[in-house]
Amino acid sequence: MNESGRVEAFSDGVFAIAITLLILDIKVPKADGPGGLWHALGAQWPSYAAYVVSFLVIGIMWVNHHQVFSYVARVDRALMFLNLLVLMVVAAVPWPTAMLAEYLREDRASHVAAAVYSLVMVAMALAFQALWWHLTRTGHLFDPRVDAPAARATRIRFALGSLGYPLTVGLAFVSAPLTLAAHGLLALYYGFNQVPVPTREAAAPS
Amino acid sequence: MNESGRVEAFSDGVFAIAITLLILDIKVPKADGPGGLWHALGAQWPSYAAYVVSFLVIGIMWVNHHQVFSYVARVDRALMFLNLLVLMVVAAVPWPTAMLAEYLREDRASHVAAAVYSLVMVAMALAFQALWWHLTRTGHLFDPRVDAPAARATRIRFALGSLGYPLTVGLAFVSAPLTLAAHGLLALYYGFNQVPVPTREAAAPS
Amino acid sequence: MNESGRVEAFSDGVFAIAITLLILDIKVPKADGPGGLWHALGAQWPSYAAYVVSFLVIGIMWVNHHQVFSYVARVDRALMFLNLLVLMVVAAVPWPTAMLAEYLREDRASHVAAAVYSLVMVAMALAFQALWWHLTRTGHLFDPRVDAPAARATRIRFALGSLGYPLTVGLAFVSAPLTLAAHGLLALYYGFNQVPVPTREAAAPS
Amino acid sequence: MNESGRVEAFSDGVFAIAITLLILDIKVPKADGPGGLWHALGAQWPSYAAYVVSFLVIGIMWVNHHQVFSYVARVDRALMFLNLLVLMVVAAVPWPTAMLAEYLREDRASHVAAAVYSLVMVAMALAFQALWWHLTRTGHLFDPRVDAPAARATRIRFALGSLGYPLTVGLAFVSAPLTLAAHGLLALYYGFNQVPVPTREAAAPS
Repeated sequence: MNESGRVEAFSDGVFAIAITLLILDIKVPKADGPGGLWHALGAQWPSYAAYVVSFLVIGIMWVNHHQVFSYVARVDRALMFLNLLVLMVVAAVPWPTAMLAEYLREDRASHVAAAVYSLVMVAMALAFQALWWHLTRTGHLFDPRVDAPAARATRIRFALGSLGYPLTVGLAFVSAPLTLAAHGLLALYYGFNQVPVPTREAAAPS
Repeated sequence: MNESGRVEAFSDGVFAIAITLLILDIKVPKADGPGGLWHALGAQWPSYAAYVVSFLVIGIMWVNHHQVFSYVARVDRALMFLNLLVLMVVAAVPWPTAMLAEYLREDRASHVAAAVYSLVMVAMALAFQALWWHLTRTGHLFDPRVDAPAARATRIRFALGSLGYPLTVGLAFVSAPLTLAAHGLLALYYGFNQVPVPTREAAAPS
Repeated sequence: MNESGRVEAFSDGVFAIAITLLILDIKVPKADGPGGLWHALGAQWPSYAAYVVSFLVIGIMWVNHHQVFSYVARVDRALMFLNLLVLMVVAAVPWPTAMLAEYLREDRASHVAAAVYSLVMVAMALAFQALWWHLTRTGHLFDPRVDAPAARATRIRFALGSLGYPLTVGLAFVSAPLTLAAHGLLALYYGFNQVPVPTREAAAPS
Repeated sequence: MNESGRVEAFSDGVFAIAITLLILDIKVPKADGPGGLWHALGAQWPSYAAYVVSFLVIGIMWVNHHQVFSYVARVDRALMFLNLLVLMVVAAVPWPTAMLAEYLREDRASHVAAAVYSLVMVAMALAFQALWWHLTRTGHLFDPRVDAPAARATRIRFALGSLGYPLTVGLAFVSAPLTLAAHGLLALYYGFNQVPVPTREAAAPS
């Protein structure tokens, strides 16, 4: 497996583990309450919502990470390091997810939990931006298919694309459930609307 | 590693982690009860039964997922997304497993826990069906070995094959232990009776 | 990646996760006892001993599993199933490890915990034997390098090699610490004394 | 996948899981204290600091492990075993991390926790040294690119490079926070200053 293949396999491992650890935050509820187990299960709906949204967030982040790395031929120290930063934030997602599920219905604490969740997403977007800026600085780490100048030109569009995240920090102080829903929608949006990596074939006149 | 190889490696990771997290639900029992540690160990038999059944369920699901993806050459956004849905349900299996083990002998709660376990299996079958319908819609994601029209024709048989799962939701309100046993049998059945992916070689007159 | 490569990658995942989950059983001790944190750390020595022994057991089991599968070219349903049984036992190892660490110094319970640990090892050896018997029954799943008749002849030696495990079940009722030590020694023994897979080159006159 | 590729894939799995389990030590704080959730979050800063440092430690260790193994062509029993020792220490890192986070601000216990953290790092450096000494003893496990005599000559430099770790054991009895910071700096240093594996191309006159 070549250099970038190894980095991708390691990254795939961290994404897969983080996404699978999310389920540890959904508890087996006590059945001895008034409404029995059905009622206790229903009362846990914030945990299910947070699980689905964070699963999509990490899943779509993996799709985008995989798409960028499929064009990377060489890995230098800086890229290795920036990739570790992306993974550091991705691996942390189960924690704000558990906190948002815990406090989603508790007035004051819900806003704080939603703001922390949003700030983790901002950190993820920034780390991914840093990775993209390093890759497109000289383009020498890309494989020959990539149109390096065109890739460099996507930087601004790429950055604008992440503006959604800081807005959710503000939304957190309006409504925590709305913030969670917004992150679900952002994940779906980025799932189907990435900035494609410009390639020479695409650029060549057909 | 090609496109679908990467999706498969990521999926293998989620399957492997979900199957290995199951053991976290089997607790170290207290030994200070009347019958000592042996008795306490015996009293935990629902956890062992749920562990074995869910291990088989996830394991066989991996075998079937791996078998389908070994014929996939290209991956589009929709397939990536549908695959995430399959993984979202697979990664959740440790939760209904822990709940069924906890309430298997508690009359009212046992039926609810068994019903939730069965509903998660229904969701898994539906997600896998959606994946198969997308793959067989045009067949363009398959590699050339696959007989696409014949694959499309298996859709109904594939769907019928999943009818067992909704029945277990009903069975849950009869007997939770029986429902758990039924899921074990369904896993064994699907372990040895998949709908094979039709290939051109198989179709060619020998 | 070919058929058996995929099964190996999935198995490697389960081995790697099981071996890494072992650390979750080593708790952060309370420091407010008489001897402070040093004393509390010292009192946890059974957890460290169980961690090291089980890490070796799973690690060496992975080495042997990997060595057998490096000669496997094709995978049939039965092999897939027998491999799931091996993984089901391997993935369970963190549970008897935590129990043995918890009760290693509690007279009656220590014997039960050590017996359960030994029984899990017997189950692992039996599952691995079943895998080896299936592979060597016709030898058609091996790649051409393997001398199938010679491989079949190792069955008895392979089985004898596992006799150590049932003996540890008896030893468990003598001394739990000795049993744990015995499993460590067995792991080291099997680490350096596997039954080699007989190949045609080895058999050919030099 | 060749022999060393399999060992690397397994090792990558253990590194990825250990690094992703670190987040389990960051708890969802109680929000019912005087300062509410913000204050409770702030009071947990040792957990965030320990998470970031240990994430870097394991991440950089993976980079160095991967760099060494990318030059390994063959694996013998001893290398397999020494690699298991490296993984045994790496997989243990979440435990001293949780302990250091728990006691970072508790006078006497903080020094003990910091010393244990440092001793685990010393063990990791020693295990990695043993791996390097075995590889460079005869050099026959390296692929042809490697200048074996030159690799052997790096042994002393490699050992000196690890002297930083024993010093942190002493620092632990001065200040736990300083010790944690020192490990962060050591990780960054080794991230950008490895002993390169000497190759014949590098040695050949240009």
